[in-house]
Amino acid sequence: MTEENEILKMHGGTEPGVLSMKPRFEVTNREQLGKAYTPGVAEIAKLIEKDPSVKNKYTMSGKLVGIVTDGSAVLGLGNIGPAGGLPIIEGKALLYKDLAGVDAVPLALNQVSVDEQVETLKNLSTSFAGFHLEDITAPKCFELEEKLAAAVDIPVYHDDQEGTAIVVLAALMNAAKVAGKTLTDLKVLVNGIGASGYATAKLLLEAGIKHITLVDEAGPISADDQRFNKYQRKLAQESAVNAHFDNLAEAIEDQDVFIGLSVGDILSAEDVQRMADDPIIFALANPKPEIDPQIAHDAGVKIMATGSSQYPNQVNNVLVFPGLYRGLLKSGIKKVTADLEIAIAKGLSARIAEPTADKFISGVFDKGVVDTVTQTVVDFANQN
Amino acid sequence: MTEENEILKMHGGTEPGVLSMKPRFEVTNREQLGKAYTPGVAEIAKLIEKDPSVKNKYTMSGKLVGIVTDGSAVLGLGNIGPAGGLPIIEGKALLYKDLAGVDAVPLALNQVSVDEQVETLKNLSTSFAGFHLEDITAPKCFELEEKLAAAVDIPVYHDDQEGTAIVVLAALMNAAKVAGKTLTDLKVLVNGIGASGYATAKLLLEAGIKHITLVDEAGPISADDQRFNKYQRKLAQESAVNAHFDNLAEAIEDQDVFIGLSVGDILSAEDVQRMADDPIIFALANPKPEIDPQIAHDAGVKIMATGSSQYPNQVNNVLVFPGLYRGLLKSGIKKVTADLEIAIAKGLSARIAEPTADKFISGVFDKGVVDTVTQTVVDFANQN
Repeated sequence: MTEENEILKMHGGTEPGVLSMKPRFEVTNREQLGKAYTPGVAEIAKLIEKDPSVKNKYTMSGKLVGIVTDGSAVLGLGNIGPAGGLPIIEGKALLYKDLAGVDAVPLALNQVSVDEQVETLKNLSTSFAGFHLEDITAPKCFELEEKLAAAVDIPVYHDDQEGTAIVVLAALMNAAKVAGKTLTDLKVLVNGIGASGYATAKLLLEAGIKHITLVDEAGPISADDQRFNKYQRKLAQESAVNAHFDNLAEAIEDQDVFIGLSVGDILSAEDVQRMADDPIIFALANPKPEIDPQIAHDAGVKIMATGSSQYPNQVNNVLVFPGLYRGLLKSGIKKVTADLEIAIAKGLSARIAEPTADKFISGVFDKGVVDTVTQTVVDFANQN
Repeated sequence: MTEENEILKMHGGTEPGVLSMKPRFEVTNREQLGKAYTPGVAEIAKLIEKDPSVKNKYTMSGKLVGIVTDGSAVLGLGNIGPAGGLPIIEGKALLYKDLAGVDAVPLALNQVSVDEQVETLKNLSTSFAGFHLEDITAPKCFELEEKLAAAVDIPVYHDDQEGTAIVVLAALMNAAKVAGKTLTDLKVLVNGIGASGYATAKLLLEAGIKHITLVDEAGPISADDQRFNKYQRKLAQESAVNAHFDNLAEAIEDQDVFIGLSVGDILSAEDVQRMADDPIIFALANPKPEIDPQIAHDAGVKIMATGSSQYPNQVNNVLVFPGLYRGLLKSGIKKVTADLEIAIAKGLSARIAEPTADKFISGVFDKGVVDTVTQTVVDFANQN
């Protein structure tokens, strides 16, 4: 069987999809029926009528995460629509269950206006313990997440934003140690200010890194350049970097860190050589990194991460989201704040007692990653 | 443990709810991750991009039923809100899985306008293979179902309406035989023209029963009486019965059949005695029937059904919905039409080879009920 056939059989074959519903007990006689369904459920309905929060104890809504995409930015495939986004969010639902025991259901959302998307999810939010947003294009995703979080009473988390930002920060904390530099003094260039680049730069600022240069497709971003969207311009304003650069090659001069969340092969050996000593390169584009690790290595780069499992130090959101949501559900935290994100990044980076260039971030299947993240969230809840 | 405690433990206890997600396989290494999630899912996303209908083969959306309530008419409890409705729809999701292997997820919908409810469900309909509506108040439910069915490309089924109507028709087909009367000649009084009474009367008309008298709280319904809603008046117009009655006692004169979908204890022994010979009484109110079976019996009634498992001939939607949706998913039928409902009623009634007063409708746990209903739907699809 070819690999593609095998994938199709895994996701299709005997029945559609990689998940099904699992009943807690069998109903095979009248007595069981009376407890599982009517008249038994009326007792629970009456309890909920008195105190709606009781639903979280006696119905799935206390544990079920809705994983939502409108398919507007799916992997490297672009806007392939809500149906096209389904296999990805269903794969994530599978990982939630397999890795953290979190029950999640895939929800493909039509590409209506942001306000209508918010209303749609709000109108069904009683059914869920949280929303996980996925593969939604920037800058739409910023507005959607902000409005949705304000409209509902459950956590809202955009994996492409917060998930990526947390793992990058965790990796950077350790990479800085390897380079013998202080995290908050780092001069960082973030290339690709879409969903993940925006959230990453924002979290780095929150973590105290002041010198962040933002570069997008049209070039380096400055606060007054109308070619960039309002989120990008506001972020540029918040950074201590005020210089106006003409291009990436100019902007990369003397940077300690390059974080690419953009496209493959846009960083050259010459670019890298213009950076400060002991440069840190996170070339996270998939499937092709912003610079081939061999080329980077030959140009003198020792401290490097990619988004791929083929190289050391894979920056992968799987390190975060399963444990994060398990922690949210355990602790009852309702908002994913920057402080919580920084706490998780610290917890994740602390897993590597002595970071080296070969390993400064945990592997996806390292034992205990999910438990570490879960515990960090629970501890954060207890301390705050 | 008291029974109530036992119910609470069954629905709560170690984790909230009676259902969880079941993964099809474990993901414990990189190779599996690559097939279950990225990059493997990209292959499926690309297939779906080319042909969106492929999603039904490779994602849960090809099998997942959304069970929707806004909690506006929950059991006998009235409008207790979306959260209050959750235990009931979750119980139904459990029955779907246990009885028919159908995967269903509970969705509590906010009580916004009908149009907004329709938009909400439409905006997420890509995620589902069908919608099952439940416990939504009349007449709102009529408009919601009609508009939703027109807006989406998947089956829409309101269990309180179609489910009840199908089981009542199935039971009535056999009850008529027991009484030695012809189904289409029956003079039928339906008492309580809410969601289920309306749908039942409508289906009886479709099945060829011409003489149907409708009675609601305010009294017998006539087409020109503005006290009744437009759905009730239109239905009265479609019936061959044009008489204007003042009250139930007057309207019941000479009726062959009383079908109560109203409230307990509103039918007296004297009422029953005014009916035609060999009257058929379906007293389906829960928990108290419209007339106590003992009182009915003493008044000479031999052919009787109730909504309760305590008496013979229980009219219960559980006879229909699991097999119906399994059949819809198997056959790919997109609309639940009156013809399909009548076919199911025929299939269900045919299970009782020789109906008697003691048994003219299958019991909920009779072997093969779900298979019969499923097969009837599949056969219907093949013939139409």
